[in-house]
Amino acid sequence: MNDAQTLIANMAAAARDASRVLGAAPTVQKAAALSAAAATLRAGLPTILAANAKDMAAGAARGLSAAMLDRLWLDEARLEGVASALENVAALPDPVGSLIDSTARPNGLVLERRRVPIGVIGIIYESRPNVTADAAALCIMSGNAVILRGGTEAMHSNHALHAVLVAGLRAAGLPETAVQIVPTQDRAAVGAMLRAQGLIDIIIPRGGKSLVARVQDEARVPVLAHLDGINHVYVDGAADPVMARAIVVNAKMRRTGICGAAETILIDRAFGEAASLVAALIDAGCAVRGDEGVQVLDARVAAASDADWDTEYLDAIVSLAIVDGLDGALAHIDAHGSHHSDAIVTEDAGVAEHFLNAVDSAIVLWNASTQYADGGEFGLGAEIGIATGRLHARGPVALEGLTTYKWLVRGTGQVRP
Amino acid sequence: MNDAQTLIANMAAAARDASRVLGAAPTVQKAAALSAAAATLRAGLPTILAANAKDMAAGAARGLSAAMLDRLWLDEARLEGVASALENVAALPDPVGSLIDSTARPNGLVLERRRVPIGVIGIIYESRPNVTADAAALCIMSGNAVILRGGTEAMHSNHALHAVLVAGLRAAGLPETAVQIVPTQDRAAVGAMLRAQGLIDIIIPRGGKSLVARVQDEARVPVLAHLDGINHVYVDGAADPVMARAIVVNAKMRRTGICGAAETILIDRAFGEAASLVAALIDAGCAVRGDEGVQVLDARVAAASDADWDTEYLDAIVSLAIVDGLDGALAHIDAHGSHHSDAIVTEDAGVAEHFLNAVDSAIVLWNASTQYADGGEFGLGAEIGIATGRLHARGPVALEGLTTYKWLVRGTGQVRP
Repeated sequence: MNDAQTLIANMAAAARDASRVLGAAPTVQKAAALSAAAATLRAGLPTILAANAKDMAAGAARGLSAAMLDRLWLDEARLEGVASALENVAALPDPVGSLIDSTARPNGLVLERRRVPIGVIGIIYESRPNVTADAAALCIMSGNAVILRGGTEAMHSNHALHAVLVAGLRAAGLPETAVQIVPTQDRAAVGAMLRAQGLIDIIIPRGGKSLVARVQDEARVPVLAHLDGINHVYVDGAADPVMARAIVVNAKMRRTGICGAAETILIDRAFGEAASLVAALIDAGCAVRGDEGVQVLDARVAAASDADWDTEYLDAIVSLAIVDGLDGALAHIDAHGSHHSDAIVTEDAGVAEHFLNAVDSAIVLWNASTQYADGGEFGLGAEIGIATGRLHARGPVALEGLTTYKWLVRGTGQVRP
Repeated sequence: MNDAQTLIANMAAAARDASRVLGAAPTVQKAAALSAAAATLRAGLPTILAANAKDMAAGAARGLSAAMLDRLWLDEARLEGVASALENVAALPDPVGSLIDSTARPNGLVLERRRVPIGVIGIIYESRPNVTADAAALCIMSGNAVILRGGTEAMHSNHALHAVLVAGLRAAGLPETAVQIVPTQDRAAVGAMLRAQGLIDIIIPRGGKSLVARVQDEARVPVLAHLDGINHVYVDGAADPVMARAIVVNAKMRRTGICGAAETILIDRAFGEAASLVAALIDAGCAVRGDEGVQVLDARVAAASDADWDTEYLDAIVSLAIVDGLDGALAHIDAHGSHHSDAIVTEDAGVAEHFLNAVDSAIVLWNASTQYADGGEFGLGAEIGIATGRLHARGPVALEGLTTYKWLVRGTGQVRP
């Protein structure tokens, strides 16, 4: 093994031991660790802010963009948000041990499926230092040990927040190695995490496309990935025009940089108010790229290229196409969608239910903005990401998604004939 | 793309189209396809037997072992078993569309999680031709399209059984490409399946260690693997000696070649009837390899080597160790188990519950034989394998394990503030 492999193997072995303790820990003890971490964070604001200032200075010196620096930046308000998030996770229902189902067999065996932690989770992330605390909190509460590997640009902030979590674990009498941070920014350590089959049970990448793509390409450990949100809003001929305008503008413009933002609007040829929809988007500050049918509606519409239909702008840009009713919308979404979140606006319940069934996405919405694609909005209390794969968990992933299950079989001496 | 990649890409595209139809097909139509396949199979016994005879002749010429030839062999009784299995799967509850949970949010949004098919499943298997029918039946009933790639030794039998399933699909008006078999035995086709990210949603290997290891090593598509069953029976000091003997002998000897067979017996130093347990195993025809504490119990016990504790014999051989109570058993299982199926025999409910919670295996049993580790015995009606991984599905996998879910969100015009 090379140095990076040895490092990760040792961290993973410590994490496995910690996961045994954490997996059996009562809810109150896990919650106490998070509450103590929140208190430690609030008491140690100057230390964390000083660490963050180092990252900000280094980032400015490296010429990070304003957007990158904003993602990196922590102030008292943002740190209070991190502390509150820790307390929110501490208050969530504990999935560990919960009963999924049970069966009594004719031979007298009684079977139960109960949730158990996954075990050891690796999180590979970029930029935002709050991920250090958010992700670790979800792992702790779901009984998992976690190995964190954040971006170089947030290194000092991440280590300061990691220290807060370790203090919380210590205060609650839980093993400190339940939350570890990779001590080196050497990229070989990432490679070692991705190939730590049997040592790390799952890798969750949180970051941009290139990070997720590298992780998916190199990983031998299973990956819970969230990929692009090329999300659609289909405005049906039977849509309420006022509702359609409000949903379309919100889905695109409320926050353009999140994965739940709409990127393409599909307008039924039978919808009578397409022009005002286009105008509303433009008036809200959005650049509109349309097919020929859309271009004739408003002189300010630019021509969409083929590439536009497959683009996640994450910006105040939208592509618009006229489609022939529900079937046209379904065909477009099937060809260009990323199976993340897609919405229909219509007053026709039959059309809506057809859409909800036929669209093969993690989240399908009727008369609601795609910006609701969020674990908090779904009542999960938090999220570690929005999974776009088809296995294990789909859509917003919080505590339940960080568990697996075991079968418990209770008998009275049964032997199989 | 090379030829194999083109072949698999084309098959996967046809499978994706078929999966859309199958995913929306009503339960009765999917069941009708399986019933029609069973009828076709019964009507076409001579054809299938002739195909199997070709495989048997080729296998004998290649010098396959008697055990391999037995796995390959089909007769009328075995084919009736395959037909019945098709009918059994047709009678199972359809998981597609079933509600997992629902929530009404304070803002009026109503959320549902409902099961949907995974999509396109690849099955890579060896030897037993019945897998062709069993696996395809589970895929059809769960609304998934499947691409089958069986072993060369069963090639003619597999194609004959595949034709039966296609006839069933045709009779029920479902797309024939819902069940496809790779038409070449070129190993490059397996490689192409393993790297068909986005085209095939999941690969399920069914076969020996080397097949599963190759699949896990090469795959970029997620894998639902079942690995070794290094299963333990721990005989506690508070075990009923008669029950302990019956369970230990059954767990080891009922069928030694299945993954649920016990491979190591751990005997509490406080258990008074260890000698009669050893004698019962030897009298049942089992070779016993023991540590020093076991060797003194019976002159017929051979010395166990270090490797024995990590060996899946799949044969009439067992390793036995004396341990210091529950903690000794847990430590041994943690160090040597494969997280498949582990049992405790005890009359002490507290000790039993501690064991069930602490042992980190897919299946944990109290006072029952590990040979119950089976989808049919668990009431699932069938199984496509016993998953030993920690994601998506664990333990016996049948219809539910071949589904994922989607979030359906119904609103009345909600936009996110």
